[in-house]
Order: sequence, then structure tokens, then C-alpha cells
Amino acid sequence: MISSQSHKWFIETTTAFEGHMHAIAKTIVEAQTKFQHVEILQTASYGKTLVLDGRIQSSQGDEFIYHEALVHPGLLATDGAPRSALVIGGGEGATLREILRYPSVNRAVMVDIDSEVVELCKTHLPEMHQGAFDDPRTELRHEDARGYLEKSKERFDFISVDLVEPLEEGPACMLFTKEFYSLVRDRLTPGGTMSMQAGMTKGGELGFFTSIHRTLREVFPIVAGYQTFVSCFGTPWGFIVASKKVDPNKQDAKAVDKLIAERIKGTLEYWDGVTHQHAFSLPKFIRTSIAKQTRVVTDANPLIVA
Amino acid sequence: MISSQSHKWFIETTTAFEGHMHAIAKTIVEAQTKFQHVEILQTASYGKTLVLDGRIQSSQGDEFIYHEALVHPGLLATDGAPRSALVIGGGEGATLREILRYPSVNRAVMVDIDSEVVELCKTHLPEMHQGAFDDPRTELRHEDARGYLEKSKERFDFISVDLVEPLEEGPACMLFTKEFYSLVRDRLTPGGTMSMQAGMTKGGELGFFTSIHRTLREVFPIVAGYQTFVSCFGTPWGFIVASKKVDPNKQDAKAVDKLIAERIKGTLEYWDGVTHQHAFSLPKFIRTSIAKQTRVVTDANPLIVA
Amino acid sequence: MISSQSHKWFIETTTAFEGHMHAIAKTIVEAQTKFQHVEILQTASYGKTLVLDGRIQSSQGDEFIYHEALVHPGLLATDGAPRSALVIGGGEGATLREILRYPSVNRAVMVDIDSEVVELCKTHLPEMHQGAFDDPRTELRHEDARGYLEKSKERFDFISVDLVEPLEEGPACMLFTKEFYSLVRDRLTPGGTMSMQAGMTKGGELGFFTSIHRTLREVFPIVAGYQTFVSCFGTPWGFIVASKKVDPNKQDAKAVDKLIAERIKGTLEYWDGVTHQHAFSLPKFIRTSIAKQTRVVTDANPLIVA
Amino acid sequence: MISSQSHKWFIETTTAFEGHMHAIAKTIVEAQTKFQHVEILQTASYGKTLVLDGRIQSSQGDEFIYHEALVHPGLLATDGAPRSALVIGGGEGATLREILRYPSVNRAVMVDIDSEVVELCKTHLPEMHQGAFDDPRTELRHEDARGYLEKSKERFDFISVDLVEPLEEGPACMLFTKEFYSLVRDRLTPGGTMSMQAGMTKGGELGFFTSIHRTLREVFPIVAGYQTFVSCFGTPWGFIVASKKVDPNKQDAKAVDKLIAERIKGTLEYWDGVTHQHAFSLPKFIRTSIAKQTRVVTDANPLIVA
Repeated sequence: MISSQSHKWFIETTTAFEGHMHAIAKTIVEAQTKFQHVEILQTASYGKTLVLDGRIQSSQGDEFIYHEALVHPGLLATDGAPRSALVIGGGEGATLREILRYPSVNRAVMVDIDSEVVELCKTHLPEMHQGAFDDPRTELRHEDARGYLEKSKERFDFISVDLVEPLEEGPACMLFTKEFYSLVRDRLTPGGTMSMQAGMTKGGELGFFTSIHRTLREVFPIVAGYQTFVSCFGTPWGFIVASKKVDPNKQDAKAVDKLIAERIKGTLEYWDGVTHQHAFSLPKFIRTSIAKQTRVVTDANPLIVA
Repeated sequence: MISSQSHKWFIETTTAFEGHMHAIAKTIVEAQTKFQHVEILQTASYGKTLVLDGRIQSSQGDEFIYHEALVHPGLLATDGAPRSALVIGGGEGATLREILRYPSVNRAVMVDIDSEVVELCKTHLPEMHQGAFDDPRTELRHEDARGYLEKSKERFDFISVDLVEPLEEGPACMLFTKEFYSLVRDRLTPGGTMSMQAGMTKGGELGFFTSIHRTLREVFPIVAGYQTFVSCFGTPWGFIVASKKVDPNKQDAKAVDKLIAERIKGTLEYWDGVTHQHAFSLPKFIRTSIAKQTRVVTDANPLIVA
Repeated sequence: MISSQSHKWFIETTTAFEGHMHAIAKTIVEAQTKFQHVEILQTASYGKTLVLDGRIQSSQGDEFIYHEALVHPGLLATDGAPRSALVIGGGEGATLREILRYPSVNRAVMVDIDSEVVELCKTHLPEMHQGAFDDPRTELRHEDARGYLEKSKERFDFISVDLVEPLEEGPACMLFTKEFYSLVRDRLTPGGTMSMQAGMTKGGELGFFTSIHRTLREVFPIVAGYQTFVSCFGTPWGFIVASKKVDPNKQDAKAVDKLIAERIKGTLEYWDGVTHQHAFSLPKFIRTSIAKQTRVVTDANPLIVA
Repeated sequence: MISSQSHKWFIETTTAFEGHMHAIAKTIVEAQTKFQHVEILQTASYGKTLVLDGRIQSSQGDEFIYHEALVHPGLLATDGAPRSALVIGGGEGATLREILRYPSVNRAVMVDIDSEVVELCKTHLPEMHQGAFDDPRTELRHEDARGYLEKSKERFDFISVDLVEPLEEGPACMLFTKEFYSLVRDRLTPGGTMSMQAGMTKGGELGFFTSIHRTLREVFPIVAGYQTFVSCFGTPWGFIVASKKVDPNKQDAKAVDKLIAERIKGTLEYWDGVTHQHAFSLPKFIRTSIAKQTRVVTDANPLIVA
């Protein structure tokens, strides 16, 4: 039954012939920043929802799934309790929030090029950042992440790449290449990990995920893909942890639960040992696709999402 | 991008405020049977798609996911190679097809009340049944499954309950109750298993899955829920294996792979040991929901999907 | 071809089984006032669009059609050049704007209960009001129109009833009844006219238009229905002029053109003698429907739009 | 309110940013002919609906409007009661049906290139043709209309051009040009008329209508445009009568009513003298657009609808 009270619908296409639609209860804010088009919509099903350049980034109702999945596998896999972290992108502040749950972390830098998006999230999405921007451990920077990594010499135990998809003329095109990931690797401590969102993982639409997986394998000895269903996207979403040394695939459910108890303050809603097993056990056809993919994404031959 | 060539869309709502839409390339057949409204649509993304009473049942493009997930966990868990199987519902014949991949099975009964739906599937969906109806081991019956179970004394090593959702006035209302599951249990051999599709498992919409899980626990000592993302539904879908003795949750990836090699002819595209681990490792919030659910579905208080 | 750049759509249903959809370029403002839900949307096709309680009121792209059709037939039919006018409703200020094109008008009162809607229109729809609220002849009042008419003794040469549809619990339910129209009649000068928007006039959906037409005939000796297609509604829209003495149906194209030249400053884009002939010549099936309608809308038995 | 029972929608776009949507109750038949894609849909609001290449042609619920408007203005304007008629296109047979209401007509030729479409209409749309194909006065031909006109020497009192829009690679591209209209003119008797459907007439989308109007003026001394709202299209639709001698614009309402009484058997639902006045009195902005249009459509520079 389609609601009789809804006259505005957000329609997100996953392909040209398939879409997912949400009733919009209210448009909270809409703006064009220097870099992208931003909306914060009140959806009937998922509460406040951040939309950048027409693509849903996260929603109040299920962002715990997305952000816990993005952050914890990497932070639970570092060699020793993590002390420093870098977020690349991460506008809503929820990635930062999850990182700050680790009392061992004493420094968390977030580099998001779009200060206007971050300001709008600060004002309108307190449910997401929950004060993370005001944490004394946080350093917030608005500049090009690639430039930042090139000029900085600092190394981090964890780097989370939480970027919008590389749309034509969008702000993220040069942040999904072998050269960029090499930079990220060089800014990780020896026992550190990076994690990233890596596109949808539904059948027939695996090109993005598998290309990034293939590209990271050029740069990192350990690359572990995993996925989780994000309700408001209407599709499972892929993530990848990469590292020079540690491998989350080797952690069993008990080990993960033990690490959560040791390293994290408070309770997680989504991630635990069994969820880890669920997410890292990729269905057969996805493993087959990864194995077949040969494309390495480079600055000279970048990946653009239509 | 929405395709410019598509002027017909199938819109399936998962709640009143959320929907999933498919471009329809062609309506292959549409009819009203004695029991339900049936359509076989050619969708642009998923090929031929069976729709009953307005709900997608399966599509050519991803039915391997649904049907392998429905059948193999149960058939791989039976105590000894399975020899007999019963399908309740299962109109397209693909559930039967997966069962017939087990050379040890020498008898497969399918009871689907709606002969017209089965005839249309026979004619228009050869890609799905792949001749399963003509297999000499197959016995096809068109009658009420509950009546059949009540009057029959035969026992099966595997019973697959592959029914449409219990819609108001639909044909399946009395096939999702404690009393019905007791009948199913009584028709299983001691080492046999039943498996069933059990509704969507996305966050906020877990009521159906968890109620069925709770209900089965009244009847069976072992109840193992699992899930898998079905692309054309736009949501993960829940399944349950129940048994008197064997527990698929206790099978590790290696054991599953070994059983597949021993029991099944040909290659599976979706299911293997790692997929088993993926599917049975339910995310934390689903386990929490199962634990909280108290509703037992009975004939007197049946479950109706709006 | 549906635009690939649009991810938000406004869907307005004309019946439960038919709708009209607009790509939304931007939500300019959205608010809940004391009386109704208001949105000003930038649509891709029609520019700024005012939406009250989910129904499009007018759009920048074709409001000239709606507002010229609402105002001029009545003002061109008054016995002698009109000197005073009253607008009931008329939030955007465009009805007022059209009235103020008559130099003979030296007093124009607008009574709109919802000051918040009017303020939002003042700020965001200057293209519509074009300064009409600042005209020295304008008196803007925010109060219940019925109460205003009851307590006032003033008579007007022209009264324009430009109200939202009488939705359940909406602000306009008691402003579409015989009793209300009697009040309007009593506030008209002997040679004065009232005009109103009177709902859609497409086949099968004529109940509103014909009931109002029938109701007005209880109150006024002359009732002249007419219609015009409003693009952004996706349906023709009905209007009615009622009076105690003058009849626009008796004006031919030449007479109308002459009156426009005499009475109005500047040029009209939509209305002229031939357009008058177009609009007042109702197609046969509409005349038949009017003739058959027996319902008189009263305070005791009001008309509510679902 | 969008109906909760509808899961299939026909979405027809009038521009890239605007569409009109219909709930589909059932697909009665769908086929690809040698020339075009054909569907007969049961829509919830309009009954059976003929769709060619994704565009609605006519619906059971309001085809009386379209077909009466297409046929009668031309047949009522011929110099003397019409005796012969030619329909170019007109697949459903309803254009023919309206022509056969004139007892004076003793010969009615219909040339529709697509015999498969006509067969499907014969079988599934008896409500539309009402036996017209079996009338002894009817001659049905399946060939290219242009070729037919070139080789035939026969002259007709009335020629109705009832074609699909000239879509890229569609069957009608060379039937909307100056050269084609010259052929039509040469096959008309001196007092004969042609009429045609000529595209939508809503504001901003007048290019097709005005170009055809301009083109016909190269060929015919008298060209009279008119329009009517067709509900199931969600937009008013333009028609044109052209002739060498007679002018429907000079007929007043009384004259039209008199001719209907004299020439037609039975009662019309849509057309009469007042409707004639409504339809031929084009709103001002349409007349302005016609006056501004300079494009003449020729074989060398044809009009293609995107």
C-alpha cells in the first residue's frame, strides 16, 4: 500500500530500470555548496536523511548499520588498541562518532572538503554526530584530502575513507585510484588499517566494488571485502578493510566480541562477532566476481559512476 | 538515471512509505485463477518475473539466490542423504528443480493448490523449472496442502514450504500456523528437515520473520533462521530450517562444502560453505528481535500480511 | 523521456488511479502553519510552485492562465467599471495583482486567514504578487472570511473567492456552502459579480463543479460556469461567475475585447474575447452534467474533498 | 490518494520533467508488430486503452471526445453532405465508426499500414469499432498511405489523418510533411475537408501543433486549428481542419447544431454547436504561438517527436 498522505517521493535508481522510492515527509534543508548539491530530507520511513548530488548517504533510521560497519572492522583489527584515526570525507560526523567510542584514540582528524555540508550536518543532524565535532580529540579540516595526505607526514592507526561516489564532476573522482590508496597506505602505521565504503554489492552491479578491491590489492598485501544491507539504499553495500599486516578475515566471532568488550565504550547495535562473520562471508557469486575482475583504477583511468 | 524507454513500472511497496520499482519490458501473461491473480512480466533488469497477487515471487535474474537458499540448507542438513522430499507451494518448479539435483532423492511430491499458476509456469518459465515437472521422480498434486498432510501418512526427509505470503483472502492463510507446522513435523522422518521462506528481514519490518521463528520453536526443538538478499525484492529475505534432530547452525563452511560435493550433482551458483556462514550469521539486531518476539501464530490467531 | 537528473517527484493524484507528476528541482521553503502545510517548490517545468496541503495551487509558468481566468470574466462583466473588490483567500497575491490592473478600482480588500502563507508568498513569490500587497489601494486582513463578511456592511463591485479545496479539517470547509454564498451575494453591489475557482472539470470528476454550480443557482439569478486548462494541474479547471444582474455569457468576443481595452492597463496574456468564448462554451458532457446535478451544498451538508 | 491495490503504473511523460500516470488493472494484450509495439491495457480509470510505441492513443472512457473531435468538424463542414471518406491510420476503427454515422457516406476507405494492430483492435476493442469494419461501405487496406495516395486517382469528400506521432523510426515520419499534405489535398473533392490530430496544445509544448498548422497553410487556403482536452492524455490535444473552400471557423453554434441534426444518425456525446465554439476558439497564447511559427515541415526536413 502506498501511503495516501504522501505527495513527494524520492526516487533513487540503482540501474536505469530499477529504483527505490521513499515518501518525503519534509525537506529540512536544501542547498548548493561549492562542491555538491545537498539535501536533508525527513523521510517517512527513515527519519532524517542526508542526500548529496541526488544519492542517499545515510538515514537516521539505519545509519547505525552503515557507520558501525564502516568503522569497527578496521578499528578492531589494528595491531594493538588504536590511538589515532583519520576520516576522509564523513560529512555527517557519524564516522567520527563511532571512532571516538574508542577511549584509546586520542587524536581524530577529519578532512572533508565541503565545509558547507559539514555545517549543515552540525546544525540539522545532531542525532548523527552526537557532539563528535566538539570532542577535544577531534581536529576538523576543510581541504582536499589528497592534498592533505601529500603534504602531511603524520601516520594514523586507522584511516576511514567515507566518500561520496565518484560522480562526473563530483568532488571525489581522484580519491578512488591506486595512486590515492598508495598515499593512504603511506600514512598508516605498520599495524594500521584503512576501511572504506566501496559501492553496492547486488548481483549484476558489482563492477565498482570489485574494481576497487582489485585496485587495493595492487597497494596492500591484505584486502578484505565485506558487505552489509543498508535498508534505505534498498541494496547491500560493500566495504573493504585493507592493511599492511593485520587481517580481519582471520578474526573469529569470539575474538571480535572480546575486542569489542576491550576496546569500545558502550554498546553496539549492529556489529558483533556474528555480524562480522555475516559481513565478511561474501556470497559465492561475489567472490567469483572479485576473482574475475582485472581492472585497476588509476589517475589516468579513473572510475566514474554514471 | 531512469530509462527513457520505459513507460510501465511495477511498484512494490515494502511499507506504506517505501517502494521498489522495476521497468516492465513486456507483460508475457496475466490471468486471474481461482485462487489468485498471476502475472509473468518481462522486467528490463531481471528477465521473466512471476508476480502473484501483486507481489514478486521470483525472477529469472536472481531466482538462483532464492531457490538455492530455500532448498540446500535443509537438504544438506538431513541425517544421511535425503531420499524423499515434499514441496508445499512452489509454483514455478524451481524449488523442485533444486531438490532433483540430489541423486539420492527418489521421490519428490509437489502440492500446489493452484493448477492454473503451475500450468502458466510450465509454459512460460522453462528457464525456471528446467523440466523438473517431467522428472520421473516427481509427483505433482493440486490440492490444499493442509488437507493433503492431514490425510497422508507418508513421511519425507525434507519438506520445503514455499508459499506466497498470507494475504487477506489469499490461499495461504492457514499454512503459517503452529497447527500447520505440527502437521509438517509429523510428516518428517526423524532425521528430516523442513525449510521455508519466512518474510523480509530488513530493520523495522521483522515482525513476520520473528513471529514465524517463535511459532516454530513451539513445534520443533531446532529452529535455525537465516537470510539472503534477493535483488529483485529490494530487501533481504528470511528463511528458516526446522528439525527434530539436526542443526545446520552446527555445520561449518568446510562441512557444507563437503556435503555439497557428496550430495549434489552439478555446480551451485549461490550456496556454498561461506555463503552458509553468511546467511546463518544473522546480524545482531535481528537476533535481538527474535529474542524479544513472543507471538505464537495459531489457527485462532493467524498472521495476515496487509 | 523521464529526466535523468531528477530524483524528487511531486505526484498529485486526480483520482486514486491517476496522477500527474512533476520533477522537483528544489524545495524553496516548507512549513506547517496554524492552518495548513505549505511548500514552495521549484519545479523543473513550471518554476516556483505553491503547494498547500499537498495540492498545487499555482505555478510561475502558468499562473497567468489561472489568475486571468479567475479575475477578468467577473471584472469585465460588472455593470460599469468596477471600483471596489474583495479577494477571499488568494494567498499568492496574484489574484489581487490582476484586480489592481483596473485603474477604476480604488479599494481592494484581501481576506486570507493564513498570515503565514501570505508572508511566505510575499518573500518567495515576488513574481506572482509583483508588489500587489504594497499597492496603496490594498487592504490585507488575516481573519476568517465568513466572520468578516458577517460583521462587515461594506459592498463590493467584485468578490473573488480564491480558496483551497475544502479538505477534511482544512481551513475552507464552511466557505463552499449556500449560506456562505448568500453572504457573498449580500456584500455585492447590485451590478457586481463574484467569481470563484470551482474544481476540476474533466470527465468523470465533475461532482464538485456541478454541485457548486447548482448551489449558486439557489442564491444568484445568474450563474455562468466556465473552464480553462491549467497545465501544471494536468486537468482543466472550472470557474464560475455569479451575479444578481449581469451575465458574461451574453458578452461576445468583440464586447470582451472592447472592455479589456477600456478597463485594463497593460496587456493580458491569456484572456481576450476569443478566450472568453473558448472558456464559457462548455463542452456538451459538462453541460449535461450540470443539468443533472441536484445537490445543494449547505452548512449542514458540506462538500469535503477526499 | 494513490490506490493501494495498484502495483503497475503506466507513466507517460509529456516533457522530461512532467508525466501523467495511470494504474494498470490488467494487460489485455501486448505484441511487437512489424511496425510498432502495441499494448491494450485495462486501466483502472479509463477502461481499455490502446498504447502504440509507449504512447496512449485512445481509451474506452474518453475516446468519444477524441474521435468526435477528430471527425465531425471536418464532416460537418463539407460543401454538401459528404459521400465518401478516407481514413489514414485510425487503427481502433473508431474514426471509421464516427464517419459511418453519416448515412450520406456510401464509401469509407481506411488505409492503415499495420494489419496486426488492426486485427488486435478488431478482437479486443469491439467497444471502439462497434462493427465499423464489417460495414458494407467500408474498404480496409493495409499499405503505406502515401503510396496509396500516390497511385490512386480517387477523390474523397473527407480525409481524416489519424496517425501516431512521427517517432524516430516509427511508421509515420513521412506522413507529416508539406509533400504529403499536397497529396491529400489533391485527393479531396473541391468542397472536401481533411482533418487530423496535430499534437498537444499545452503551453510551452506547442511546437508540433504550430509547425503542422504553418505547413498546412503552404498547401491549403483554409486551415482551422482547434483543440480539446483528452482526459487520459492529461493534456489538451490539437486538431486541424484544412480545405480548399469551406471554413468551419465561419460556422456558428446554431449552424453546427442544424448540420448535426441533418447529417448524423444518433446522438453525439461530445460535439455540438457550443463544443464547436469551445474547440475552435483557441486561447490567446496559442494563437500567438501559431502567428510566430515559421517552420514548414518537408520531406527533407521532417518533424520527429523525441
